Amino acid sequence: MVTKEHISSKFDAELEDIRNSLMQMGGLVEKQLSFVVEALAKGDADLAEEIVDTEESIDRMEMAIDEQCMRIIARRQPTAGDLRLVISISKTVAELEAIGDDCKRIGYALKDIIDKGYDKSMLLPARHLGNSTKTMVKRSLDNMARLDADAALSVLRSGDDIDTEYEALMRQLVTFMMEDSRSVPKVLDAIWIARSFERIASRAFNMSHHCIFLVAGKDLRHRSIDDVEAAISD
Amino acid sequence: MVTKEHISSKFDAELEDIRNSLMQMGGLVEKQLSFVVEALAKGDADLAEEIVDTEESIDRMEMAIDEQCMRIIARRQPTAGDLRLVISISKTVAELEAIGDDCKRIGYALKDIIDKGYDKSMLLPARHLGNSTKTMVKRSLDNMARLDADAALSVLRSGDDIDTEYEALMRQLVTFMMEDSRSVPKVLDAIWIARSFERIASRAFNMSHHCIFLVAGKDLRHRSIDDVEAAISD
Repeated sequence: MVTKEHISSKFDAELEDIRNSLMQMGGLVEKQLSFVVEALAKGDADLAEEIVDTEESIDRMEMAIDEQCMRIIARRQPTAGDLRLVISISKTVAELEAIGDDCKRIGYALKDIIDKGYDKSMLLPARHLGNSTKTMVKRSLDNMARLDADAALSVLRSGDDIDTEYEALMRQLVTFMMEDSRSVPKVLDAIWIARSFERIASRAFNMSHHCIFLVAGKDLRHRSIDDVEAAISD
Repeated sequence: MVTKEHISSKFDAELEDIRNSLMQMGGLVEKQLSFVVEALAKGDADLAEEIVDTEESIDRMEMAIDEQCMRIIARRQPTAGDLRLVISISKTVAELEAIGDDCKRIGYALKDIIDKGYDKSMLLPARHLGNSTKTMVKRSLDNMARLDADAALSVLRSGDDIDTEYEALMRQLVTFMMEDSRSVPKVLDAIWIARSFERIASRAFNMSHHCIFLVAGKDLRHRSIDDVEAAISD
């Protein structure tokens, strides 16, 4: 942990508690992402439904952790590293909640595709993007758990690969639509799925910034990756 | 103001400062939205470029306000209403920053459309959605300034109208694509614009929740509108 031990061991326990809650919530979001990729691979409407239903639990976890964070700030009046920990956790749960929303959107879009006639090959590239995105989210959560700013930096660097994969996928889907106009509604669902993955990746990107802020004590959002690297190796 | 006067008049001044900074940032975001609607109406590539360029200022404002909020928490150790004010402001600037990002995305999409051949009539419904969205953002900011939870509730209620407008617009754009497959790339840009407006509206929705949390002291996200109404009239 970044934080030193406190005179109040109860305060230490509270900080440990919100870290554990964050990791539990992160675990659920990772599971959602695995289900999303699996449901896309199998055209599984029941699993898509389950993904949609699980979003509520993620929302509840966000609100509970957020309240814990507020309570710690009000009662314990943390400063320096402790305050950064609480603030980073609060921001990270907001990103996780947004990823939960996007998983739900993908669940709906997949259900729609299944209604219109599931097409495994059309969804294959989106599934690949889903796998890359899932890995990015997993790495971001691991870095937060291990307080590893260097690894968070390498997640930031991987953003470009996701962008490249996303752009190629979009070009392919646009071609499908232009070649067969009847495919438009179905391909559009695949486009929403791709777009949701791209947004999930950008959430993982943000989470990596929250991790860097926590560990290095610097808010380096909106800076070039090289600037971030220079700043954290200071 | 929700907060009483403090023994330290410097603390009062600091709270007033972050409220003013928030409103200044809100003003800039509103201006961006006006420019977005105007650029869509005129097919104005220079204005689209300006929108893209202005996003950096919005990012900088977010980071500056966020830092002010952290500093107040660390030095002043606010509790109750003061803490809610600081937290709500920090969350609201994150929404405003995201709206800034979406304006930038719209700027890029419009530039793309102009490159492919500007089509005023194709963009007309998206412009209407843009106007509705702009109004929703403006109302959310006004409510935050006036600490008006009831008016924030009515913004939440207006979310359904935006959804209806968005759905109708999407159906229309899908029809365009199916009727003329050559139009697909251009219509897809219009779809991104519509989607961005829908996301901006959902940011205004979130801002209204932050306002309700600040004024009524209750986190009522993810609850039905009727539940929210019952809770704030308690």
